Amino acid sequence: MDAADESASELKQYRRIILLTDGFSTPFLAKTAISLLRYRQNHIAAVLDSTEAGKTAQSLFGTGGTVPVVRSLDETNADALFIGIAPPGGKLPEHWRATVISALSRGIDVVSGLHDFLCNDSEFTSAAEEHGCRLIDVRRNNERHTAQHVEFRKECLRILTVGHDCSVGKMVTSLEIQRVLAERGEDAQFLATGQTGIMIAGDGVPIDCVVADFVNGSAELLVQRHEQHDILLIEGQGSISHPSFSAVTLGLLHGCAPDGLIMCYEAGREMVKGLHEIAIPPLQTLVTAYETNAVLRNPCRVIGISVNGRNLSAEQAAAECERVSSELGLPACDVYRDGADVLADAVLALRGEQR
Amino acid sequence: MDAADESASELKQYRRIILLTDGFSTPFLAKTAISLLRYRQNHIAAVLDSTEAGKTAQSLFGTGGTVPVVRSLDETNADALFIGIAPPGGKLPEHWRATVISALSRGIDVVSGLHDFLCNDSEFTSAAEEHGCRLIDVRRNNERHTAQHVEFRKECLRILTVGHDCSVGKMVTSLEIQRVLAERGEDAQFLATGQTGIMIAGDGVPIDCVVADFVNGSAELLVQRHEQHDILLIEGQGSISHPSFSAVTLGLLHGCAPDGLIMCYEAGREMVKGLHEIAIPPLQTLVTAYETNAVLRNPCRVIGISVNGRNLSAEQAAAECERVSSELGLPACDVYRDGADVLADAVLALRGEQR
Repeated sequence: MDAADESASELKQYRRIILLTDGFSTPFLAKTAISLLRYRQNHIAAVLDSTEAGKTAQSLFGTGGTVPVVRSLDETNADALFIGIAPPGGKLPEHWRATVISALSRGIDVVSGLHDFLCNDSEFTSAAEEHGCRLIDVRRNNERHTAQHVEFRKECLRILTVGHDCSVGKMVTSLEIQRVLAERGEDAQFLATGQTGIMIAGDGVPIDCVVADFVNGSAELLVQRHEQHDILLIEGQGSISHPSFSAVTLGLLHGCAPDGLIMCYEAGREMVKGLHEIAIPPLQTLVTAYETNAVLRNPCRVIGISVNGRNLSAEQAAAECERVSSELGLPACDVYRDGADVLADAVLALRGEQR
Repeated sequence: MDAADESASELKQYRRIILLTDGFSTPFLAKTAISLLRYRQNHIAAVLDSTEAGKTAQSLFGTGGTVPVVRSLDETNADALFIGIAPPGGKLPEHWRATVISALSRGIDVVSGLHDFLCNDSEFTSAAEEHGCRLIDVRRNNERHTAQHVEFRKECLRILTVGHDCSVGKMVTSLEIQRVLAERGEDAQFLATGQTGIMIAGDGVPIDCVVADFVNGSAELLVQRHEQHDILLIEGQGSISHPSFSAVTLGLLHGCAPDGLIMCYEAGREMVKGLHEIAIPPLQTLVTAYETNAVLRNPCRVIGISVNGRNLSAEQAAAECERVSSELGLPACDVYRDGADVLADAVLALRGEQR
């Protein structure tokens, strides 16, 4: 999203958001809704899923407390409807069209992170115009900045999360480290690079939707706009070994020129998400690949490991953290269970080295 | 360019092309025109540069033989006007608008590789429609294929040129190796990934203009469309260390999953093109980086070096080839001076190993 785009700041202003997950309230598909419940719970008025109405968000998703799950827009007084899913292919489910039109007819803004833009749909744009409300496609961008190998402010420490695959917790890891650092009184800022992160932070760059020649540049510009902060926690994307998305990963790595990387992985995941016959390389191979690429732009190394232990028991997760920490010689923790203190320590230690 | 796009095959059909370089006939800016003169000389009717009219292409550019340089469209009978420059920023020079309109008024198709699309200009589209001719923007694409880690046909050997920077001769190296292999009776095909290559080959993918999530996929699809050939010489883009364009480079590398790489560099170039304070890493560092990344997708190594000796004397170039060959332990040659026999040998040796 361009700095000049008014929709960026607008996203932050909503205070009574409805999350639309109607019929798709699974942890895998409703990733966007779950993350918004986790990080903007106070701004969420309800989840709209007619098949689960009557429950709370907490009972449906394991997060979101008493936020109600409702049957229709009638049951709440919203200022925005956020599309809460990230479906494969990026298309709006056909039976949701009526809900979107209904929201617009009530003057409610509609926010979407789909690859298929709502504002390219004439029925939606007509309804929005008629009722004086907005369609915001957070992936839509007109990034046209060629990276210039900017020398960022020396006192601005840049930490990028990287992963062994997609959807392993890079955004959550960046947000959790930011939270811990802020609690400790540090001037730490989260920078979003994907649609869900942008919906949470209200700002960022939808880097997977930028034209290839400007991917590095869009990341560089994002950092430049925030380099007044002391520490930037930059949301990573994809994986350097991902057969489909490695272009995005490297452009982001070189564009934001991090000083340190946090390696994120899901314990037990051995095959690439969506390409189930393709093995993910060993972590040590990936650490080497990330560092080999990163130092082409800026001195940088992996400083910690974020273990996603969602398929493990608490005991197993603790053992896995110990195992991987010993294997790679780096601090490791399960941020979902234990918070990010261990990784925040690693960030501050890196800053200490650099001063 | 999509396989379904009719303009691809159409590009091959022109037989009386005017190359427009009016006022910009320098080797750096007129790269597109010079390459077309080099590889499609028989299809070039004239170069249009009013400031150099009366010369031959050979005397102006050092290639193109007796192709005349003319003052205006009046002096020739053309079937297409190709924009022959790649200006920084990618915009059409303002004083060229009249020439484009004049061409369209005569029913002459206009072909452009600029980032700014001609077909987004209503004056141009109106003129084209009125006179029944076409505007072809070779960078325009609607690539939406997510790479699937396709297992390509085993007998299809894929060779990608890579570089230490932009504009060092990757396209020319791929074309020259293809030419030598074809002369030896091999079924070798050049695959274009940039605007000039597409204008030469009539087909390809303008990979720097693809949306980030689909960069790897667009390269994969290009290879899939041509895997019936025995050897593919794939035009490389950018550099893995280029601060601005590395996203394109890695997406192409992973998308086409090469078996071998040809490392291209310009002797004496020490700073990144367009970023004159940024040093290019040593060749050995880059070889390691390319191989580290390539093997994440497919077994692969650098098999030869293409030396661009344009700033050297013949003697210096020969010495440089010897020096770099000894330093990296790989065959090396200056394809501009000596042709690509040495590199074609390396390609066939790699095929021998794999059989």
